[in-house]
Amino acid sequence: MTRKQLYQLIVKKKSFLCIGLDPDLDRIPKHLLETEDPIFEFNKQIIDATHDLAVAYKPNIAFYESLGSKGWISLEKTINHLKTYGNQLFTIADAKRGDIGNTSKKYAEAFFINLGFDSITVAPYMGEDSIAPFLNYPDKWAIVLALTSNQGAFDFQFTESVYEKNRLFEGVLKAVRKWGTEDNLMFVVGATKAEMLKPIRDIIPHHFLLVPGIGAQGGSLYEVAEFGFNKHVGLLVNSSRGIIYAGQGKDFATKAREEAKKLQMDMADILDHRLPIKT
Amino acid sequence: MTRKQLYQLIVKKKSFLCIGLDPDLDRIPKHLLETEDPIFEFNKQIIDATHDLAVAYKPNIAFYESLGSKGWISLEKTINHLKTYGNQLFTIADAKRGDIGNTSKKYAEAFFINLGFDSITVAPYMGEDSIAPFLNYPDKWAIVLALTSNQGAFDFQFTESVYEKNRLFEGVLKAVRKWGTEDNLMFVVGATKAEMLKPIRDIIPHHFLLVPGIGAQGGSLYEVAEFGFNKHVGLLVNSSRGIIYAGQGKDFATKAREEAKKLQMDMADILDHRLPIKT
Repeated sequence: MTRKQLYQLIVKKKSFLCIGLDPDLDRIPKHLLETEDPIFEFNKQIIDATHDLAVAYKPNIAFYESLGSKGWISLEKTINHLKTYGNQLFTIADAKRGDIGNTSKKYAEAFFINLGFDSITVAPYMGEDSIAPFLNYPDKWAIVLALTSNQGAFDFQFTESVYEKNRLFEGVLKAVRKWGTEDNLMFVVGATKAEMLKPIRDIIPHHFLLVPGIGAQGGSLYEVAEFGFNKHVGLLVNSSRGIIYAGQGKDFATKAREEAKKLQMDMADILDHRLPIKT
Repeated sequence: MTRKQLYQLIVKKKSFLCIGLDPDLDRIPKHLLETEDPIFEFNKQIIDATHDLAVAYKPNIAFYESLGSKGWISLEKTINHLKTYGNQLFTIADAKRGDIGNTSKKYAEAFFINLGFDSITVAPYMGEDSIAPFLNYPDKWAIVLALTSNQGAFDFQFTESVYEKNRLFEGVLKAVRKWGTEDNLMFVVGATKAEMLKPIRDIIPHHFLLVPGIGAQGGSLYEVAEFGFNKHVGLLVNSSRGIIYAGQGKDFATKAREEAKKLQMDMADILDHRLPIKT
């Protein structure tokens, strides 16, 4: 999907919501455990109940790998189901991969070619040749970790450098933006620190940001929009557990829709009134 | 596997060789493509031909994921075959994972419980809660990236900090060593910079190091041993392509054995004469 298509999708749906598909056999409704593929059945019902409210879906690969090859099959079925919606959904493999060049190339094949995701999250520690292989596919995206939403973000990401006194996440933004373009690079920026979006927007005014940490991990949507919007919105805001585990009964997908709807209505309000998009 | 068992294995086999299992359908011998599972067939023959020369095997997960659920099945068969050798082999999932706590927990389940690897490589960017879940399993190991062997290592890993003027990889070593022990933590240190092992050994004298970059990526075994040995050896030196792609014909496993044997004989020489182990 191109940047323009993603922007048009946001305008059309009045939503910049990404729904995280992190299905856990211990947490999904019990009646699904009797089906042939509980993980896929759960995802399918969530997707079908929310597809008009969200612009993006983000399966976190760990939840599938923890179930072995069976989990990988559930992942394949999930992305295939997402693709039946065509260009009405942007798909993100939340995989946080990154390895030496010839190996990152294999991960790019795994997620872009074999599975057919639009994008993948990538860890920056190993530098340019670990990220470059994800930038070679037209209309595909690398979403690079800059500032994460967890407590461990404070361990290394705020390390202040001798040169220019950049913090590491700022150094990552400044270096990585040169390796790609606004049409194949996004960045992960945690929403638990919404005010951090301001200095980040000084460095990368035009890139899309994937913002986790709304909902279960905390973070205010209005603050995130205030500091993070650019003239083409430029934000995908993710919620996982707050939506997908809203209900535990047979009506779990309806409950998920209700939670997604609340967020989408706030987003429509922001897009319509508070922070009108400059076109 | 415990640290003591690993050390005893090294002494018994006179080897600290790790063989990287990075099977690529474009590079494995053509006659294998006719078999039901070429990737597993390739791995099985390599393992059976070299098991007495290597102490560890390291499948890089990217090469399996690039083939989808079918590749994951080949990976399952490979680890199951490695486990038939019991405690005669140490197994490493070269996965470079790392995510927020509840997600890293899933990756730990994937590789330690579901697949049953002894260890997994982990990226440090997301900090303590991304690594801690890998340290909760008895006799299992997290192998944390410190200094990698690729060109991109120079992008961020050498970033010099304002405080104490640590470079990032040194900061990673100093922080991460506190999160675990010498019995559940190892570090990845690239061999293309053998002299870098000296300052690293000042920070972590007793930990095991996984050293990639011998062979295809360059790096001298004798130098690595000179700078990297500790009194219980403390090194696993990896070679992947140099061994597994030594031959292209039906005798590829024999050719792989010949290359592995050369490295193992150098290792025996180092262990016996040049740098005798202090027990």
